[in-house]
Amino acid sequence: MTTPQNPSGEDSLIARYFKPLATDPGAFGLVDDAAILSASGDDIVVTTDAVIEGVHYLASDPPDTIARKALRVNLSDLAAKGAVPAGFVLTLALRSKEDAWLQPFADALGEDARTFACPLLGGDTVSTPGPQMISITAFGRVPQGRMVGRTGARPGDRILVTGTIGDAALGLDVLTGGEVAKALASDPVARDYLVSRYRVPQPRNLLAQAVRDLASAAMDVSDGLAGDLTKLCAASGVSATVNVAGVPLSAAAAGLVARNAVCVETLLAGGDDYEVLCTVPPALSDALIAAGQAAGLAVTAIGTILAGRERPRFLDGQGQELALKQLSYSHF
Amino acid sequence: MTTPQNPSGEDSLIARYFKPLATDPGAFGLVDDAAILSASGDDIVVTTDAVIEGVHYLASDPPDTIARKALRVNLSDLAAKGAVPAGFVLTLALRSKEDAWLQPFADALGEDARTFACPLLGGDTVSTPGPQMISITAFGRVPQGRMVGRTGARPGDRILVTGTIGDAALGLDVLTGGEVAKALASDPVARDYLVSRYRVPQPRNLLAQAVRDLASAAMDVSDGLAGDLTKLCAASGVSATVNVAGVPLSAAAAGLVARNAVCVETLLAGGDDYEVLCTVPPALSDALIAAGQAAGLAVTAIGTILAGRERPRFLDGQGQELALKQLSYSHF
Repeated sequence: MTTPQNPSGEDSLIARYFKPLATDPGAFGLVDDAAILSASGDDIVVTTDAVIEGVHYLASDPPDTIARKALRVNLSDLAAKGAVPAGFVLTLALRSKEDAWLQPFADALGEDARTFACPLLGGDTVSTPGPQMISITAFGRVPQGRMVGRTGARPGDRILVTGTIGDAALGLDVLTGGEVAKALASDPVARDYLVSRYRVPQPRNLLAQAVRDLASAAMDVSDGLAGDLTKLCAASGVSATVNVAGVPLSAAAAGLVARNAVCVETLLAGGDDYEVLCTVPPALSDALIAAGQAAGLAVTAIGTILAGRERPRFLDGQGQELALKQLSYSHF
Repeated sequence: MTTPQNPSGEDSLIARYFKPLATDPGAFGLVDDAAILSASGDDIVVTTDAVIEGVHYLASDPPDTIARKALRVNLSDLAAKGAVPAGFVLTLALRSKEDAWLQPFADALGEDARTFACPLLGGDTVSTPGPQMISITAFGRVPQGRMVGRTGARPGDRILVTGTIGDAALGLDVLTGGEVAKALASDPVARDYLVSRYRVPQPRNLLAQAVRDLASAAMDVSDGLAGDLTKLCAASGVSATVNVAGVPLSAAAAGLVARNAVCVETLLAGGDDYEVLCTVPPALSDALIAAGQAAGLAVTAIGTILAGRERPRFLDGQGQELALKQLSYSHF
């Protein structure tokens, strides 16, 4: 990204919208091809996630929420790894240079960059004849060797999850006029809540240090709780049992389940939650729940890690296993 | 990127094609959401460049050359910054999961990752209804404070460039059936050479250490020599004069200029060269040329940095300034 004497369209776009976001000295004011990330003795945690129009967000979504989602899905990964945000680079594939879209996009991106102390370090702006795409690579810092991985879950560990599960999938259904939209036709407050959960994830970066200090394994829930727990267990070589009645639901989601408007399986397999899923030795689980309380965040124990390699079992209130047709969202 | 017990389409794609490329311990075999990059006391240089089907490559380009181009445009940035490659993350936006495309793509990407000692650290694979896109963020290491920027050019510095200029723009013209294709109708060797220069950049990483030790400023030539030198001069607050007769051309390009089939202005503004453009104090320029020779690479002095803020001037053999209608390629 550059700001030359005689700016081309691309350069003036960058100078106008994105230079104000490049507050870190390592970004060189976006005047170079590259940025510097100082490790200062820490490990650098790297994560990358892209969002595509029509796949991860809707063309009708407001540009400010698209910007926030693009950055926050990456911040959510950093939180689950126990890392402190250090900055990000942005690839923006645009059909055209539309000020009416770019200004609120850049403003919201800059606001989130400040809120989460994660400055823009550099990027690439390219034209595309197809859907818009925003690809972000984000960086965090952890003390050497302290990144929380997926492989450390051990039999007996408690399984904890932040916030509530399934809201975003319901919000997408509201936006696309599905069953949930019909069931909530007379409840605009619930509709708005669920839509906001789809459009603007709430990454749990306030909990990152507690996750780093207490969790044996962690990941963020992005493709559905059931599938993501399955992945974590596979990586750790363990199994698990989950008490489905204990999975935290929002009032809106719980109301829909109580009215049989959606089944709980849909919530367990729904994507876009961006909550932290982690495993914690039993003696430490109360400490993580307390750290959540201190951060104003619900942290809920939903199950236990077991020895074995079987797929995690999701049990209802009667101890019967739910048959999950789909574990998670897959792009292919 | 993950490899679970019960792989989804996306996960099996990653396990099959990309896990073999994740040779660095910090990649965790792509089993985690994030990777670790150890700085070991160095600065981490970060660069990101995306390529989009129909914009940066043609839908008809072979998948192996697309993979190489996607990685090499980033390696070229690292070379120009004086950095040693450390790894990369990949975002791959695909229309479908086509083995016939993915296998040669992944094989070539892996081969280049090994050749340039730049392993895959992680990534994101997403579906898109539109053109394919490959976004890569690459990392390099330099000793602290030693990244070569764009701001250090000083009056009197020599301007040097590696390799030859303008070939890739001619190669694109060959592929799209333009004037060059017609002019070279009976010269398949020249056509193939120019096409290969468009499809497969030759990043100058072998010269990175010499650039770091000798250059006052550097960047890679990706959007056209004229425009890129203009950007470098603007960033350094200097002007420049370039002897156009001294700009290195390949035999194919020189032949086309001699026959008036293309004008030199086209070569100076053409994109996709991926050569290193740098400025060097006069006493050190012979050393950089010698370092190029040692690496089997032509390094050519093409001009001089001047005091002032005027746009660089490109002079023909008679000292007349060329009027450049377009300095470089811009996406908008």
